[in-house]
Amino acid sequence: MQKEKVYIYGRHAIEEAQAHAPHVLKKVMTNVKGAGHGGYVAIVDTTKLLIPFSEFIATLKPTSSMALLVLGGLTDPHNVGAIIRSAAAFNVAAVLLPQTGQAPITSTIAKTSAGMIFRIPLVTIESVAGAVQDLKGLGFKSYGLAGKGTTSVTNEQFLSPSVFIVGNEGVGLTGEVERECDALLSIPINARTESLNAAQATTVVLYEWMKQHPHG
Amino acid sequence: MQKEKVYIYGRHAIEEAQAHAPHVLKKVMTNVKGAGHGGYVAIVDTTKLLIPFSEFIATLKPTSSMALLVLGGLTDPHNVGAIIRSAAAFNVAAVLLPQTGQAPITSTIAKTSAGMIFRIPLVTIESVAGAVQDLKGLGFKSYGLAGKGTTSVTNEQFLSPSVFIVGNEGVGLTGEVERECDALLSIPINARTESLNAAQATTVVLYEWMKQHPHG
Repeated sequence: MQKEKVYIYGRHAIEEAQAHAPHVLKKVMTNVKGAGHGGYVAIVDTTKLLIPFSEFIATLKPTSSMALLVLGGLTDPHNVGAIIRSAAAFNVAAVLLPQTGQAPITSTIAKTSAGMIFRIPLVTIESVAGAVQDLKGLGFKSYGLAGKGTTSVTNEQFLSPSVFIVGNEGVGLTGEVERECDALLSIPINARTESLNAAQATTVVLYEWMKQHPHG
Repeated sequence: MQKEKVYIYGRHAIEEAQAHAPHVLKKVMTNVKGAGHGGYVAIVDTTKLLIPFSEFIATLKPTSSMALLVLGGLTDPHNVGAIIRSAAAFNVAAVLLPQTGQAPITSTIAKTSAGMIFRIPLVTIESVAGAVQDLKGLGFKSYGLAGKGTTSVTNEQFLSPSVFIVGNEGVGLTGEVERECDALLSIPINARTESLNAAQATTVVLYEWMKQHPHG
C-alpha cells in the first residue's frame, strides 16, 4: 500500500517538485531546524505523482526512439532512487511500478533520485507481466535484465520501441515475467563475480540504449 | 580512523572471506538468531584487508590492460559497496582509498559489495593527488570522473594503464586532484538532469573500459 504523505528534504528536491510536479506539494516549510536539509522540508502526496497505467497508455505514441522501464519487485529504496535518476538521465519516457511487491515512493527514494521522481513520469501497474503484454501489443520489444541472459547489451540493436524490465535484487525476474520477454539482456562481466547490483546493471543497459537514441 | 572490527552477515559474504581473505576473519558464528542473515555472522578485522600503497606499488607491473580505481572522498557506504562490486565485475585490478575523508569499510559496504571487498585488493593511500602522481610516474593515464568533463567516455580509447578517480557525491573532485588528471571523463546524459549518482557513473566508465579490455 502506497503511503500517501512523504517528507522530502532540501532545497533542490523541493525546487524540482515546484517546477515539475507542483500538484503533489501539500506543504513547504522553510527555516526548519535540523541537519542536512538546509532548513527546507516539504510534504508531498505521492499518490498524485503516480499515473494509472490505463491513462498512460491511452495517449502513448510509441516510436523507435522510446524506452520505458519497468521495476518488477525491487525492495531497496537506494536502488529504486538511483534507477529513477538514471532513467531520467538516459531519456527514458516513463518508469512503471507495480502497486504491490515493490518499494513504494518514500523520502529515501525522493532523495536518492536527486528529485527526479518529480521529473520523469511514474506509472502504476497492476501486474508486471500484464503491462509488458499490453506494451508488446503496442509494438514494444521487451527486454528482461538477467545475468544469465544470452543477448549481450553491448551488441544489441535497439530498433523498436523498447521496454526494459528489472527484477528483484535477490531472485531477479519471475518466470511469468521472463516468458513475456522477447530477449534477456546480460552485461559482460568477469566470471569471478556473480552479478552486478540491480541499479548498476539497469544504468549500463539504459546508457547503451541512449547511445543509439541520443535525442530521445 | 578505520574501525578495526566489523560484523559481516550472511553465508555468501562469509564464504567469500573464507575463500579469498581468510586472514581477516576473527570469528565465524553460525546458528545466530535474527533476521536476514540465515544464522551466519562473522567478525572481520578490516585493517588486515587493506594493503599499504607502498607495498602495492612495489610489485605492481602496469600493462595497457590494467585499470585501477581511486575513491576520493565518497561518503555514502551504499555507493562505496556498489562501486567495489562493479570494480570486481569489470576487471579492475585494485581499489584505492584514502585513509581519511572517505567512508571506511563497514558492514554496509561489505553487504552492498556482495562480498567483493574480500575478492578485489583494497589499497590505502595517504592522499589521492599523491597516489595519482605516483601512478602517472609508472605510466598510468589518469582519468577523473566529472560531469563537466570534455572527454566522452563513449569515444575514449583506453590504450595505456588507466587509473580512474571518482570524487565526493556532492562536490566531486577537488581542484588539487583535477590538476593531476590527464583527462576528465563525462557520460552523455539528457540535459534535463544534472548528473548521475557517483556509483552509476563509475559503473558506466568501468563498463566502457572493460569493453576494450575483456580479458583484464
